[in-house]
Amino acid sequence: MNMANNSTTALDSDGAVAIVNNLTWDDATWILTSSFIIFTMQSGFGLLESGAVTRKNEVNIMIKNAADVIFGGISYWMVGFGISFGKDEGSNGFIGVGYFFVDSNGPDMGQLFATFVFQLSFATTATTIVSGAMAERTKLTSYMVYSFFNTYVYCIPAHWVWDKNGFLNKLGCVDIAGSGVVHLCGGTAALVATYLLKPRTGRYENEEQRPILGNPVNTILGLFMLWWGWLGFNCGSTFGISGGKWKLAAKSAVITMNGSVGAGFAGIVLSVILYKGKYDVSTIVNSVLGGMVGVTASCAVIRPWEAVITGAIGGILSVFGTKLLDKMKLDDPVGAISVHGVCGLWGMLAVGIFAQKDKFQNLTMGRNGLVHGGGFYLLGVQVFSCVSIMTWSIFGTFLILWPLKKTVGIRLSLEEEELGADFVEHNIDSNNRNDSNIIFSSRRT
Amino acid sequence: MNMANNSTTALDSDGAVAIVNNLTWDDATWILTSSFIIFTMQSGFGLLESGAVTRKNEVNIMIKNAADVIFGGISYWMVGFGISFGKDEGSNGFIGVGYFFVDSNGPDMGQLFATFVFQLSFATTATTIVSGAMAERTKLTSYMVYSFFNTYVYCIPAHWVWDKNGFLNKLGCVDIAGSGVVHLCGGTAALVATYLLKPRTGRYENEEQRPILGNPVNTILGLFMLWWGWLGFNCGSTFGISGGKWKLAAKSAVITMNGSVGAGFAGIVLSVILYKGKYDVSTIVNSVLGGMVGVTASCAVIRPWEAVITGAIGGILSVFGTKLLDKMKLDDPVGAISVHGVCGLWGMLAVGIFAQKDKFQNLTMGRNGLVHGGGFYLLGVQVFSCVSIMTWSIFGTFLILWPLKKTVGIRLSLEEEELGADFVEHNIDSNNRNDSNIIFSSRRT
Amino acid sequence: MNMANNSTTALDSDGAVAIVNNLTWDDATWILTSSFIIFTMQSGFGLLESGAVTRKNEVNIMIKNAADVIFGGISYWMVGFGISFGKDEGSNGFIGVGYFFVDSNGPDMGQLFATFVFQLSFATTATTIVSGAMAERTKLTSYMVYSFFNTYVYCIPAHWVWDKNGFLNKLGCVDIAGSGVVHLCGGTAALVATYLLKPRTGRYENEEQRPILGNPVNTILGLFMLWWGWLGFNCGSTFGISGGKWKLAAKSAVITMNGSVGAGFAGIVLSVILYKGKYDVSTIVNSVLGGMVGVTASCAVIRPWEAVITGAIGGILSVFGTKLLDKMKLDDPVGAISVHGVCGLWGMLAVGIFAQKDKFQNLTMGRNGLVHGGGFYLLGVQVFSCVSIMTWSIFGTFLILWPLKKTVGIRLSLEEEELGADFVEHNIDSNNRNDSNIIFSSRRT
Repeated sequence: MNMANNSTTALDSDGAVAIVNNLTWDDATWILTSSFIIFTMQSGFGLLESGAVTRKNEVNIMIKNAADVIFGGISYWMVGFGISFGKDEGSNGFIGVGYFFVDSNGPDMGQLFATFVFQLSFATTATTIVSGAMAERTKLTSYMVYSFFNTYVYCIPAHWVWDKNGFLNKLGCVDIAGSGVVHLCGGTAALVATYLLKPRTGRYENEEQRPILGNPVNTILGLFMLWWGWLGFNCGSTFGISGGKWKLAAKSAVITMNGSVGAGFAGIVLSVILYKGKYDVSTIVNSVLGGMVGVTASCAVIRPWEAVITGAIGGILSVFGTKLLDKMKLDDPVGAISVHGVCGLWGMLAVGIFAQKDKFQNLTMGRNGLVHGGGFYLLGVQVFSCVSIMTWSIFGTFLILWPLKKTVGIRLSLEEEELGADFVEHNIDSNNRNDSNIIFSSRRT
Repeated sequence: MNMANNSTTALDSDGAVAIVNNLTWDDATWILTSSFIIFTMQSGFGLLESGAVTRKNEVNIMIKNAADVIFGGISYWMVGFGISFGKDEGSNGFIGVGYFFVDSNGPDMGQLFATFVFQLSFATTATTIVSGAMAERTKLTSYMVYSFFNTYVYCIPAHWVWDKNGFLNKLGCVDIAGSGVVHLCGGTAALVATYLLKPRTGRYENEEQRPILGNPVNTILGLFMLWWGWLGFNCGSTFGISGGKWKLAAKSAVITMNGSVGAGFAGIVLSVILYKGKYDVSTIVNSVLGGMVGVTASCAVIRPWEAVITGAIGGILSVFGTKLLDKMKLDDPVGAISVHGVCGLWGMLAVGIFAQKDKFQNLTMGRNGLVHGGGFYLLGVQVFSCVSIMTWSIFGTFLILWPLKKTVGIRLSLEEEELGADFVEHNIDSNNRNDSNIIFSSRRT
Repeated sequence: MNMANNSTTALDSDGAVAIVNNLTWDDATWILTSSFIIFTMQSGFGLLESGAVTRKNEVNIMIKNAADVIFGGISYWMVGFGISFGKDEGSNGFIGVGYFFVDSNGPDMGQLFATFVFQLSFATTATTIVSGAMAERTKLTSYMVYSFFNTYVYCIPAHWVWDKNGFLNKLGCVDIAGSGVVHLCGGTAALVATYLLKPRTGRYENEEQRPILGNPVNTILGLFMLWWGWLGFNCGSTFGISGGKWKLAAKSAVITMNGSVGAGFAGIVLSVILYKGKYDVSTIVNSVLGGMVGVTASCAVIRPWEAVITGAIGGILSVFGTKLLDKMKLDDPVGAISVHGVCGLWGMLAVGIFAQKDKFQNLTMGRNGLVHGGGFYLLGVQVFSCVSIMTWSIFGTFLILWPLKKTVGIRLSLEEEELGADFVEHNIDSNNRNDSNIIFSSRRT
């Protein structure tokens, strides 16, 4: 999704504006279709999280995912897109200026709107990562305020890495579909949020006890939706299909599937080892997701067998990451910090290790990773990019949540937490859902 | 989806037949992919409705959605498409003749079949709108008969507005993706059906009591599916991607998302006001849907900030529409009349207010809306079109349901209603679903 | 999906390799988008099956569907694709050699990867058919081993029918999207698996008793997902969109929808007759699926009204097939043998009866079916192909499952079966899922 490299002919990279005006309708077909697929990931995240929490919170987390689109969508249209990709005066390596309240009636209309829709689908996905880590104890009102501003936490690194003027882009950072910009950024924000929120009440009082999944079928259905949605995410990041781009899009699909498959295999083996022959649903689900996060940065520039290995390492990291966080009493109900943060970090490093330059879009700016004879430069850039993104994400998330915590508060009261967010926030009594008699109740009494 | 304006070059509009033969394979890719996305809306409607009704009716409503595809599909293939888009002798401004039992082996095969599939996806969606309003008390057999004929209620206004020969098309009516043809028509039919069916037993005996959602997670998942499906619906209505069409498709995506986002924001604010700080699921869900209905007619011809406003008004109307209907004791279990009817009406009017002529496909036939200096002509045409569509839909729906009501009956008996349609129609006992012992029962006794 | 006929210009069929290098980016858009849609069928199969089994097994079957992608994906990438489409020395009419551990960095990269992704989406679908028939009594570990090797059972007939060198391809077998290669092969494997596994305990002790669906809403949602996914399956099988291919893709969409609609109508009528006026969910769902299986082989070469008939016959066969199997005490919890096996067989024969040669891609190699004056040759080839596929599938499935049965075992113990696979394999207690108190439990005691 590097907007500095989306030329229709290979190796021609005379800047984002010129290139954006270069889109053909074939590219638009690819970009828009990919965007529509990516939006379905909101359903996937919603179900994944809703199935993972206790039943008394399963509706609340779905509404949070809707809020991410609503509040994230408004703020991204107003300011977010401009911060990431604006070219007006005042733009620099750190932040963009322009395109605020995205609109156009001129010749660039098609290009601008197609680009905006695609980026919007990324932005709402990035925002929603945090919702899972904050599940079961966060005030919905505060979450909505957070969701609105959280968009900007994502938009700044998006500028650094994906805009031609971004300072990490100039250094040569490679993050094709966002292991760093989307996942590491979101996972780090989730870590901060979890730290500020504190664990769910009673979560670590009994060391042996693991929370049960409220609806494992929904969790696995959520995984499935994310799985196929990820294909739109990674393959759409060629940002077009014309010229040589379709070849990289096809390659990205293979890398994504191989990454998920390697990770799933690793997760299943791990589960059998860790849980004495049982196939633990969370372990398998988070492994597959962690593997896909792991190949997201490199999806068009590594080889299929490298994807199996990268994915498997991602899967393993997601499992042990969760265990480590629990040891540190950082309570993340769905494992978002580990899946997105830890595996996002790994995905960025994997570029530095396995990347190979390509002949079609020059996605790595001519550089190779460590094992392909490129030396340590690319790996170093990736490490530096990770440190930059994490630092910003910690800073930005604190800047939003700390004032909220000190004023209106971000956490439900103990009593509210016990009653569950579905009842407290939505007047839904999860124990009374099977009661099919309400319509007739007045007749009977 | 105005088939009179689907030329590949701007301002060239020498009629639907010539144009239809102008489709490129790029257009076909867009049209077919959009159709496939639109078909997923059937899943969305099914879940939205199934989650909104009581548990004892949740399966029945899913089967109704399947029946809409089956019976609506047969009747649309047999006669419906021909009524809307036929060009044979006998065709006039009110009704088309031709293409019955759609088939071709000649040079127009590709164009005809691509067009038919796209229109079929619209027709089944239009038919299914009514199913929600009829939930929890309608005989399934009667519903199936109704579903078969209901297709024609939709096909006639589709001819008026979208066929080059339609009398509303000639007046200059603009309804890009169907706020009027699909939603107002369906919402009006739902109103008539609700009126004829009478409320669910006991529904208005206790004024304070609102029915609970049987499965709110499914309702929100249904919203999500409809949300992304709407992108196919509105963006596919450029009916192609070549020439300038891709620019309007990209614009439609932005308008659709902005409409939903404005509506969601309005709905959340309204919910907090109306329900004392609670985030009511029905209110939020129906707001987002109402906002999207509101921008459906104008999705390619208004500006992004106008979409936020139009969507927000749609969201507000959907909420108060439902309250008004309940005041009038018109019992619509899922709010379909308000979301589709009231907001569909608003969507048609919004064109008359906000539309701007476009340079690419001349979708408004050179006219502007009120705020863009176009005067009252376009608004007047839109009002007249709404009156025409509503009159027809009331007449047509009566013509189907009245004879059914007077002969086989359309309503379950009181006892059946109390038992629930799942048991009465499908032999499913919702209280016995967790019983995992059936397999072993014979061994134990 | 006949890879010998995917030329961009009609009637030009100079072989798969040359053709594969002929793909345009427009074709790639179609192929990749179709693949992404086909992958969503995994969600559909998962839900269909999960909703059909008892609640104590609903998670297990979802994990089996994930395992089909993971293990099937690894084995397809390693060897499966090469067995089907390899061209290296050693390839013959029975088996292909080459493309093992699929990879490329050369000029064929785009073509190879796009083809692989598309075929992979087919392979994982084919593998998953068997999972439903094995539900509620199969050891998960054994299932995973089976899933890995089952891929090869599918890959061999894929070579026979879809590779230019395949012996059935040379005879003129026509199986556009896989009634034979995917469904008959999978359904036959399901039959063998069911035979080896024996019925669920107590299943046939009480003749009157039919198992209840654990979650009928999920079953119908699964049907919906498969329904729209099937459009990608059948329409994607033109393997491109350029030249005349888009016309056949559009036709395939019409045939698929008409097949499903005819089948659904037949299924509803049958249900009313067989179940005394009740609309039986399993009957309706399996009819629609059976109808689509029935038109899968012929989707681009029969006419719309023939699709209605072919689909209706498929729907009827799926219902009576299930009844027959139950008479024979072959216990298939989701009806997979009947839907895929019986209707797959019918789909292959329907080609021999209804096929017409096309002018665009010469999909039938110039031949017509019985009713279009083509005589018995094509029908004979189809019969011979069915016999070949079934023979191989019986042989191959035995070869995998028999050794497994005799060593580690393929069946859960009686006690495990009674406890349910969710508890036994995944530590999930389905009776304790509503317990929202786990978090607080330590505080209370």
